[in-house]
Amino acid sequence: MRRRLKLGMVGGGQGAFIGAVHRMAARLDDRYDLVAGALSSNPDKAAASAAQAGIAPERSYRDWRDMARREGELRRTAQGGIDVVAIVTPNHLHAPVVRAFLAEGIHVICDKPLTVSLSEALALEALASQTGVVCMLTHTYTGYPMVRHARELVSQGAIGELRLLQVEYSQDWWAGGPALTGEGAWREDPSIAGPAGTLGDVGIHAYQLAAYVCGVEPAQIAAELHTFGPGRVLDDHVQVMMRYANGARGTLWASQVATGCENALTLRIYGSKAQLRFEQEEPNVLWLTPQGGAAQRLTRGRVQSEAASRATRIPAGHPEGYIEAFAQLYRDAADRIEGNEDGVAVLPDFRDGVSGHRFIQAVLESHRGNSAWVALETVRPAD
Amino acid sequence: MRRRLKLGMVGGGQGAFIGAVHRMAARLDDRYDLVAGALSSNPDKAAASAAQAGIAPERSYRDWRDMARREGELRRTAQGGIDVVAIVTPNHLHAPVVRAFLAEGIHVICDKPLTVSLSEALALEALASQTGVVCMLTHTYTGYPMVRHARELVSQGAIGELRLLQVEYSQDWWAGGPALTGEGAWREDPSIAGPAGTLGDVGIHAYQLAAYVCGVEPAQIAAELHTFGPGRVLDDHVQVMMRYANGARGTLWASQVATGCENALTLRIYGSKAQLRFEQEEPNVLWLTPQGGAAQRLTRGRVQSEAASRATRIPAGHPEGYIEAFAQLYRDAADRIEGNEDGVAVLPDFRDGVSGHRFIQAVLESHRGNSAWVALETVRPAD
Amino acid sequence: MRRRLKLGMVGGGQGAFIGAVHRMAARLDDRYDLVAGALSSNPDKAAASAAQAGIAPERSYRDWRDMARREGELRRTAQGGIDVVAIVTPNHLHAPVVRAFLAEGIHVICDKPLTVSLSEALALEALASQTGVVCMLTHTYTGYPMVRHARELVSQGAIGELRLLQVEYSQDWWAGGPALTGEGAWREDPSIAGPAGTLGDVGIHAYQLAAYVCGVEPAQIAAELHTFGPGRVLDDHVQVMMRYANGARGTLWASQVATGCENALTLRIYGSKAQLRFEQEEPNVLWLTPQGGAAQRLTRGRVQSEAASRATRIPAGHPEGYIEAFAQLYRDAADRIEGNEDGVAVLPDFRDGVSGHRFIQAVLESHRGNSAWVALETVRPAD
Amino acid sequence: MRRRLKLGMVGGGQGAFIGAVHRMAARLDDRYDLVAGALSSNPDKAAASAAQAGIAPERSYRDWRDMARREGELRRTAQGGIDVVAIVTPNHLHAPVVRAFLAEGIHVICDKPLTVSLSEALALEALASQTGVVCMLTHTYTGYPMVRHARELVSQGAIGELRLLQVEYSQDWWAGGPALTGEGAWREDPSIAGPAGTLGDVGIHAYQLAAYVCGVEPAQIAAELHTFGPGRVLDDHVQVMMRYANGARGTLWASQVATGCENALTLRIYGSKAQLRFEQEEPNVLWLTPQGGAAQRLTRGRVQSEAASRATRIPAGHPEGYIEAFAQLYRDAADRIEGNEDGVAVLPDFRDGVSGHRFIQAVLESHRGNSAWVALETVRPAD
Repeated sequence: MRRRLKLGMVGGGQGAFIGAVHRMAARLDDRYDLVAGALSSNPDKAAASAAQAGIAPERSYRDWRDMARREGELRRTAQGGIDVVAIVTPNHLHAPVVRAFLAEGIHVICDKPLTVSLSEALALEALASQTGVVCMLTHTYTGYPMVRHARELVSQGAIGELRLLQVEYSQDWWAGGPALTGEGAWREDPSIAGPAGTLGDVGIHAYQLAAYVCGVEPAQIAAELHTFGPGRVLDDHVQVMMRYANGARGTLWASQVATGCENALTLRIYGSKAQLRFEQEEPNVLWLTPQGGAAQRLTRGRVQSEAASRATRIPAGHPEGYIEAFAQLYRDAADRIEGNEDGVAVLPDFRDGVSGHRFIQAVLESHRGNSAWVALETVRPAD
Repeated sequence: MRRRLKLGMVGGGQGAFIGAVHRMAARLDDRYDLVAGALSSNPDKAAASAAQAGIAPERSYRDWRDMARREGELRRTAQGGIDVVAIVTPNHLHAPVVRAFLAEGIHVICDKPLTVSLSEALALEALASQTGVVCMLTHTYTGYPMVRHARELVSQGAIGELRLLQVEYSQDWWAGGPALTGEGAWREDPSIAGPAGTLGDVGIHAYQLAAYVCGVEPAQIAAELHTFGPGRVLDDHVQVMMRYANGARGTLWASQVATGCENALTLRIYGSKAQLRFEQEEPNVLWLTPQGGAAQRLTRGRVQSEAASRATRIPAGHPEGYIEAFAQLYRDAADRIEGNEDGVAVLPDFRDGVSGHRFIQAVLESHRGNSAWVALETVRPAD
Repeated sequence: MRRRLKLGMVGGGQGAFIGAVHRMAARLDDRYDLVAGALSSNPDKAAASAAQAGIAPERSYRDWRDMARREGELRRTAQGGIDVVAIVTPNHLHAPVVRAFLAEGIHVICDKPLTVSLSEALALEALASQTGVVCMLTHTYTGYPMVRHARELVSQGAIGELRLLQVEYSQDWWAGGPALTGEGAWREDPSIAGPAGTLGDVGIHAYQLAAYVCGVEPAQIAAELHTFGPGRVLDDHVQVMMRYANGARGTLWASQVATGCENALTLRIYGSKAQLRFEQEEPNVLWLTPQGGAAQRLTRGRVQSEAASRATRIPAGHPEGYIEAFAQLYRDAADRIEGNEDGVAVLPDFRDGVSGHRFIQAVLESHRGNSAWVALETVRPAD
Repeated sequence: MRRRLKLGMVGGGQGAFIGAVHRMAARLDDRYDLVAGALSSNPDKAAASAAQAGIAPERSYRDWRDMARREGELRRTAQGGIDVVAIVTPNHLHAPVVRAFLAEGIHVICDKPLTVSLSEALALEALASQTGVVCMLTHTYTGYPMVRHARELVSQGAIGELRLLQVEYSQDWWAGGPALTGEGAWREDPSIAGPAGTLGDVGIHAYQLAAYVCGVEPAQIAAELHTFGPGRVLDDHVQVMMRYANGARGTLWASQVATGCENALTLRIYGSKAQLRFEQEEPNVLWLTPQGGAAQRLTRGRVQSEAASRATRIPAGHPEGYIEAFAQLYRDAADRIEGNEDGVAVLPDFRDGVSGHRFIQAVLESHRGNSAWVALETVRPAD
């Protein structure tokens, strides 16, 4: 009988969107049992959320420090402590929570952004390298089969040499008037969300997706941030020009005040041989257009691709979506944790966290310098 | 701590596509525990499949009759027998398996088509009415939020009076050459699949979807079947003209030899006020076009709709797909089984099974009569 | 200096949509000079229309009989009589006008439908064969480059053997309430429009397009007509099932009460090797999908195709539309009239008129016979 | 009988794409007669081109200076000299040719870019203001009905206050290898094409389209140019960030090495109330999406819009394209020349030429300054 991994969760109490998504993702492929959690800093809410999630009362913790300690002890004493923890707290807690569980040798699945600063990200990445446990960062969009197929095509030379890259991530939910309230309110508070607003929330998804598919990050960027929302402190719009070491050029823009947009993450890359286009809102499709030729609509389930097949559950024409992409990361992490490395995709990990924070800091620097070009390799931790 | 429903499964052993989908659907929303099964008529395969599915060996049965008996006994003696059974066998076994579990008072989730004949369907529907348990038929596409929204719009009069209805379901997987082998081979055998090939496999999905959204079935149909595949006995293509009691007209066609099609189920309805269009391969969208006006692209997560909201897990722009639609049926069934009727959608049930078989038999009759019009209400069980 | 063909026109006075389109089509490629006309049966309107169209007063006729006689005389006496006449009157006048100009040896460009009955169509077709002049029927949609490319692909075997054909033509302009008024009112009068409403207006476009692309017409059809508009005599909706001699199957439907549709003519054909799809509202694109493979978006200006290239004026990505398609027919007719047969496309001619009327009559027969199958070859003139 | 305007043409001999387009555009609506031309600097080609275009030999000139002089004389002496000249030479000749015809009081239709420098553009614009003749610049895309409707919507406040603007123009025809040859070769030569390559060829189309629709130009830009083609001198890619006076932000990029792109000019604007999107390759459609709501697919022929209706010839669903848009500029120019100002659209004129060159020069300055922000109002003629 197949053994499932024992999963704990920090954050993600009732009402938190992303916690619920993590739990669905963990369940979908039946590789995890959620057995422990510190789901909220509010004790009543923590208890209620745990009960609803099927966590036994004795494994529902008031404090994630207690949880790390106790679950570590259960592990050491072979009493069924968790194998892996999912961290879905507000951003500023990621780092201390990661440290606590890494210290117990527990595998980590952490929501992005990894931390609220480059220096923290570098420190966690170094720590992760030392411990050798699996440390995954949930850059969801890398779980889509057609994103993986795109990466495979690029690495196989199907587009030739990279020339242009256009990536954008536009939403409109922050376009409306006053300050946020409720579960998401922390996103407007720099002390919790970090120094980047939209840049950190969705901009680094766009950045990471481009790097994941192309296998390369820009050498230099010139950028500016802008805040449209009245009374808002953090950026709600960012636009960036990019230069790559091989001479390729590109732009990235991300906005949460892009009126009429839902979750419009689009990546277009133009190589010397062909163009690739992926739109997150139609994730079962990848467009491949050879220079001067007819666009081909590649679909999940029909492409001959080991990478895409691994991330596909049902036949072509039966759409899979966001939850499946998220679940794919969980499935891949399970394979890696269990030592089934064969064919496992390159998973987003703490190195992506470092890259993302380096990009964030470069954008902040360029913005302070009136959009001066900043070389990514010269960016140093600010704090 | 939330109690999950105890689920059993008949059929769906390793390699069976639809069994795996049922299990994912049951897991997604955490309302079921799969605890028993007779997953294959092959004992070794049954055991291996059960182990993989996390079913304890003592609850893995060699024969579904034993399973029905034993689980019924566990229920009666409050030892944790299953609450509900999912039936995913080849078609000809649906009827006897349903009977066996209904006899034990166990709720039933049955894959479509309900049976292999109208007479059986009528009998099961009568039985279901008497027992009062929940009997759901998994017409998956009714689980999509935008299908439910379409139904709501129609019932609220948003399209005015129905005038035209065009529904089609085209696939190409059966277009290739010789006979099927392996798990799906029974689909070519009338003694197992029943007298309808593509008509029964996907045609009735199209028929049921149209009826579900419009709330009305045609009064008369004229139809013909055709078989393109060499050496094939059952139809692989069906085309139908339809007349509705109010004078509306329509066509339905379904094909599994429609070259280049994946799973192209499309419903278009034209009322006196507006048109609705739904395409299964883009399920997060519903198109509403008023007479003479601009098409509106309604999206899951943005429409103000109780029906759609209930079937939605994540925000607009984060695609949900086929597995989520399937899971929705399981979630609704769970609500119904637990007595939470408030706001539960109209679920496809054995009455849809009867309608489907009445349609199948009418098509067969019309086809034998060289496409003569057949009134659905005059169709009598053939056997 | 390039000589232009001298063009006359019958019908098409001010306010008539199709007359203006013919004139734009004739002008676009600079192959015609419009020099004579009997543009309206109303003398004042005829004169005003001629003046606006740049026709000299002495070549503006009150009666098309006078025009045919006088222009024929000018031809015989080498005084510059017209080379070709465009006939854009209401349907019932097509036949006598065609006869009058054919009698003078003048080439004919006639709007569809050719006549109001099969017997007339047969008679005109016979007459056209005898005279040897160019007789073109303006089935506009055959002027699109991608329609021609589709025909070329089919004839070259790119889709394999035809299996399924789905063609539809839906509009909504007749969906509204009461009777038509003004220029288009004759469409509701069987004594002018003929016995077919929507069937004759757009249904035969759909029929002809399918035959043009596939190179084959159905052997049998089963059909019904319906009239939704209150107080209307002629059909405003038609639905048809089709059988081809090789066993292929298909459906055709056409409607002018299809709420929310503009000019939605769509052809889909499925062969043993590949599928083709053309949508008139996006005419610069043709979709080719091989069995089991990725759809290819072929575009005007990029396909390697003699047929498409001949009908293309500007580079890929610069859309051409309906007027250009119409102009293409005029350009091809000019080439044919001038004897430049090399590479000229197969143009719609009076044989298409006969085919169209045979189809119309077969549909009327099938409809009277409660949708009985009718073999097209058995259809005899009704009058 | 309607009088047509007498049209002359400079440039546009056989083989020149844009000259043929101008002639089709001039013919489509029957408002012009092409009666004179200096179609090529090569005398044989000029004569042959004139003959093919239906220009009498005595009105075919070897030199545009002779043509301006002689046609001016014919005008002054009421002998039917041209009313208007279309200038379709390589860029560096625009200015002297414009001057020569303006000196004769002849209206001017000039292809873009107006000149090869800002100083020349300013001079021509001043000259045009003094003469009072009609001076149109053929920024084709402003002739599309849905572009005009977009402008109308913006000016009426339908999108609220402008926040974001994204415009791009991507082609791939310059992506291939070596230098251009034949008719288009001058585009690679700065002494003929001017200092901007792709920037001047398509970049200013994008810039002008954005300004036309929004009614506002950016206050500052930061940009860089890049050249991918080996051995090429001029830019083949440009990327720009933009700041507007009201705080709005945006990006523009244009490329002729964007692999797989045909003529992909796309404008997206996001206001405080709604988003607008226009794609040149689907010009019969404009997308309007209110904040948080459903996208509406507005179509040519269905929108209630004086601006769009004026630029529409045929009913909804019958696509119009690039030639029709071009013809619309000619039709509008004819109305203006004839003094029918009522309802005539705002036409692109030499002020757009000045704006375009100011933008070009600002981009060149910013590029030289390593993408430093440049305020457009500070840009001074460089030469």
